[in-house]
Amino acid sequence: MYRAPINEIAFTLKEVAGLKQLQGLPGNEELSEDLVDAILSEAAKFAEEEIAPLNRKGDLQPAQLVDGAVKTTPGWKECYTNWYQGGWNSLTGSPEFGGQGLPNMLHVAVMEMWNSGNMAFTLGPTLTIGAVEALEKHGSEYLQSTFLPKLVSGEWTGTMNLTEPQAGSDLSALRTRAEPQPDGTYKIFGQKIYITYGDHDMTDNIVHLVLARLPDAPAGTRGISLFVVPKYMVNADGSIGAQNDVRVAGVEHKLGIHGSPTCTMVYGDEGGAIGYLVGEENRGLACMFTMMNNARLAVGVQGVGIAELAFQQALAYALERKQGKAPGAQDEGMSAIAAHPDVKRMLLSMKSKAQVARAICYACAHALDMSKAAPDEAGRKFWTERAGLLTPIAKGYSTDIGVDVASIGIQVHGGMGFVEETGAAQHLRDARIAPIYEGTNGIQALDLVMRKLPLSGGDHVKAFIAELREIADQVAAENMPEMGSAGRKLRAAVNDLEEATLWLLEAQGNGQIAEAQAGATPYMKLAGLTLGGALLAKGALASKAEDELTRKRRVQVARAFAETELGETAGLKETVTESSQGILSVDIAEFA
Amino acid sequence: MYRAPINEIAFTLKEVAGLKQLQGLPGNEELSEDLVDAILSEAAKFAEEEIAPLNRKGDLQPAQLVDGAVKTTPGWKECYTNWYQGGWNSLTGSPEFGGQGLPNMLHVAVMEMWNSGNMAFTLGPTLTIGAVEALEKHGSEYLQSTFLPKLVSGEWTGTMNLTEPQAGSDLSALRTRAEPQPDGTYKIFGQKIYITYGDHDMTDNIVHLVLARLPDAPAGTRGISLFVVPKYMVNADGSIGAQNDVRVAGVEHKLGIHGSPTCTMVYGDEGGAIGYLVGEENRGLACMFTMMNNARLAVGVQGVGIAELAFQQALAYALERKQGKAPGAQDEGMSAIAAHPDVKRMLLSMKSKAQVARAICYACAHALDMSKAAPDEAGRKFWTERAGLLTPIAKGYSTDIGVDVASIGIQVHGGMGFVEETGAAQHLRDARIAPIYEGTNGIQALDLVMRKLPLSGGDHVKAFIAELREIADQVAAENMPEMGSAGRKLRAAVNDLEEATLWLLEAQGNGQIAEAQAGATPYMKLAGLTLGGALLAKGALASKAEDELTRKRRVQVARAFAETELGETAGLKETVTESSQGILSVDIAEFA
Repeated sequence: MYRAPINEIAFTLKEVAGLKQLQGLPGNEELSEDLVDAILSEAAKFAEEEIAPLNRKGDLQPAQLVDGAVKTTPGWKECYTNWYQGGWNSLTGSPEFGGQGLPNMLHVAVMEMWNSGNMAFTLGPTLTIGAVEALEKHGSEYLQSTFLPKLVSGEWTGTMNLTEPQAGSDLSALRTRAEPQPDGTYKIFGQKIYITYGDHDMTDNIVHLVLARLPDAPAGTRGISLFVVPKYMVNADGSIGAQNDVRVAGVEHKLGIHGSPTCTMVYGDEGGAIGYLVGEENRGLACMFTMMNNARLAVGVQGVGIAELAFQQALAYALERKQGKAPGAQDEGMSAIAAHPDVKRMLLSMKSKAQVARAICYACAHALDMSKAAPDEAGRKFWTERAGLLTPIAKGYSTDIGVDVASIGIQVHGGMGFVEETGAAQHLRDARIAPIYEGTNGIQALDLVMRKLPLSGGDHVKAFIAELREIADQVAAENMPEMGSAGRKLRAAVNDLEEATLWLLEAQGNGQIAEAQAGATPYMKLAGLTLGGALLAKGALASKAEDELTRKRRVQVARAFAETELGETAGLKETVTESSQGILSVDIAEFA
Repeated sequence: MYRAPINEIAFTLKEVAGLKQLQGLPGNEELSEDLVDAILSEAAKFAEEEIAPLNRKGDLQPAQLVDGAVKTTPGWKECYTNWYQGGWNSLTGSPEFGGQGLPNMLHVAVMEMWNSGNMAFTLGPTLTIGAVEALEKHGSEYLQSTFLPKLVSGEWTGTMNLTEPQAGSDLSALRTRAEPQPDGTYKIFGQKIYITYGDHDMTDNIVHLVLARLPDAPAGTRGISLFVVPKYMVNADGSIGAQNDVRVAGVEHKLGIHGSPTCTMVYGDEGGAIGYLVGEENRGLACMFTMMNNARLAVGVQGVGIAELAFQQALAYALERKQGKAPGAQDEGMSAIAAHPDVKRMLLSMKSKAQVARAICYACAHALDMSKAAPDEAGRKFWTERAGLLTPIAKGYSTDIGVDVASIGIQVHGGMGFVEETGAAQHLRDARIAPIYEGTNGIQALDLVMRKLPLSGGDHVKAFIAELREIADQVAAENMPEMGSAGRKLRAAVNDLEEATLWLLEAQGNGQIAEAQAGATPYMKLAGLTLGGALLAKGALASKAEDELTRKRRVQVARAFAETELGETAGLKETVTESSQGILSVDIAEFA
């Protein structure tokens, strides 16, 4: 049922998010528009024809633990095999290890399609990419030569083992132990929870990346090291060896993404799991952080994928389903519910939010790519900061959009939306994890406010706001009647964002840490709304070269978002700047 | 785990929603504070000890179809029997038929507790009350004497059969047929879907109220009649007779409220189900509408119940769970997550929204009660209009709050929230139906804007806004430092509500129906926010007589809601008054 919106995706890449800027830069010499279009079109085919048909199946026949091993949903192993053998896992991997070295921008575009097709399926490869990055940057030659080629190709998958029962958002509390061995390896002992695709039957081996503590490690986050712990040892000739002391002890029963096994992993129950140090001792968190931006962005893209899917399904239903008579309807009989103003409002809200999430995630990918490809040091610094600024917004705001849009999708379906058979409810259940994992959206908001606003002494975010203002001014200057009050709304939003930003910077400067933290979540929404409105407007302005229908749609979506969503920025600004005292004065335990 | 917030409930009844005004009025002579307190306290005990323990069980062992009959979750039949034998079903029923004749205000208060305890369980009796009202007002003497005593006591349950596959929000499309028989009964033929507790094993009989068309009925809604169709015929001596031609053909697999069987019912497969006309022929919808206000309010109360439950669970978790160090924390080690400003903000948001939904629903019940009890005609007219105005807000806004708060509850739990074992996810799944059934929230918003704003030529809503302004002025005049900027926020909200209201009235006056409809949903939220903020502030002002802690909490909640939520009213007002052109100009089919 899912149809990949290739035109929308290509347009957003090229005209909104900045792909053209990347073309021709070092490492992107072969990034022609033809190549982009060809990849998008092939990916669309695979997403629609092979991945999407398994989405409902994964929901109904979850991955499960059978005789101490995880059995995935029927058909998933075959689909995964076709997928990686088609070269889809190796898009971004380094050519040195068999990868295609393509930029993140292209990757998020195809990731969106995989996620629309089947988020639970796509989550597996998403984790592999994290492992690839960690090993590309921090792995020893042995680790790189032994594991990278098969992780890059997708012949093996990777996992990230961070969380323990007492250590979730706060990794300083983790207890898994690593004991150095005379041969240079380590023995790993401990339990990890919520390990995505911790076990499965789709590949011959699984490469676990595990955070653990050395015996003499300092307390807190400066005493954490990162290890590779393969499910099966690898022989010198590259063949699969003995089973390592790793086992899956349970699979969670979750609200959604049923097809994705969320495992409890036990290391070292029978004498110690053999692990290999990645990077330096006690520097494990730094290794993790190098891949955090990409992983967080990848979760943001899940929000995009679900929002697009939910929109497509709701629109199809609303055009088909007839109830009542829309005001002014000329036809005999009942109108399609899509013709009723209230339903049209819901559909436009879904469409515009999906496009906002897409534009933000793609812009974030662009910044990540530029942080590597920019020709000079100043440019790389600028784009590194920009990627840092955009990542929490891409992760936090896009995944909030995923949940929001999926919920509106249920509402458009009425009673049918609450019945699982329809499939609309699954989107909400699936989407609901994305604001939680890879750093909750509260953590994202804190990262945005406490770490990203202060970059370059606040100058970076100020420059960013100036860019948004330029777009707003341009919209206002063009004075297009069909854009309604979008220019005015956008200008007001930019002012609100600026005011809230300056307040937060000042609060931090004054050491009012709690005050700044209290406003973090409303600030993230304010930033997401304003950036989203600006990117939609940028797209509308850039669409003059498009055909009439395409252009009309871009203008309508940008206008609808500005006129129905941006009004919220004034209230959010006030919440950031005025509500912290009240919140902080509360002893919430008194409400128990 | 659930603890009924008796003090909050009693305070809201007495000091916020207007119970005192009702006391002593005709029909409420015995409504003493002692009686109220005694009933609340007994209900709390039953909700906590007998209903709540079955909530998770119903989720895990849904009602199911076995050999052509619905088998409910183990333990539900016993719980239901204890419940109705305890007199809980007959609270509001007319004394003439064995009811206790208590006001709606008391009923919504105990309904809140049943719903917090177990929404899926409580839904059954909620439907019975609808049947009781229909028969009390429109049933013949035969129907009243045969069915009412057992429906009032709860020995039998009732159902409402409206929806058909092609007729959901638009009942004019329904096709179920009724053929008059020589003996004055009718034979009913047709299929109904989404029939809550359409079949179950908790009682000896089920009394279906069924909408159907007579052979010569006019098309549309003026050709619909209402019938009683019992599952089993009733003999002249009141004993159970032969089985009627009614059967359950399926039970839906739903996102939530698994314990509540949602049935497809087939009438007349074997020659025709025997039915009895309720009220006049072709006047069935009018009969339905008389009970609509109460049923919609009852669904609003589900939002209250779930919000309260989700808040309690999230607060308990956040006080227990330790991660990181809150800013300024003096203790050794990690802080409870409740101490982190971002989590505190979430918890305050949950708490204040639950209290808002409660206050609105109770105020709506008060209006319904006053519409019967007011001593003069003008008073009854006023309160009838007030109930009409508040009902769509109580249903629409409170159920949106239920979903919102349940989703925040998941977020507070982090990864644990996505795991079904925790129970937090069930609240979201359960809550998600309430914005859909008994008239979707879009329908509620349209009812509010198109039917309720124009009451008394717009004068009623203007008087309502003036009352809200009085509260805002009072808060501002008291100038309490601990209320922060609540007075100012509330005044601004009232102004926004007024402006949007006048715009909508004018649009309708000008025949701009589509324009008014396009703004209906944001208007409903604007009205809910403003009313909610005003009722919380009213409670804060009225709490001077309370103990210090209680008073402090009321002030804190009112302030937090005003400072973190009311800022949105400006944007909503703009959306109502400025976005319709953009929305209506879109041909949404062009986005397919």
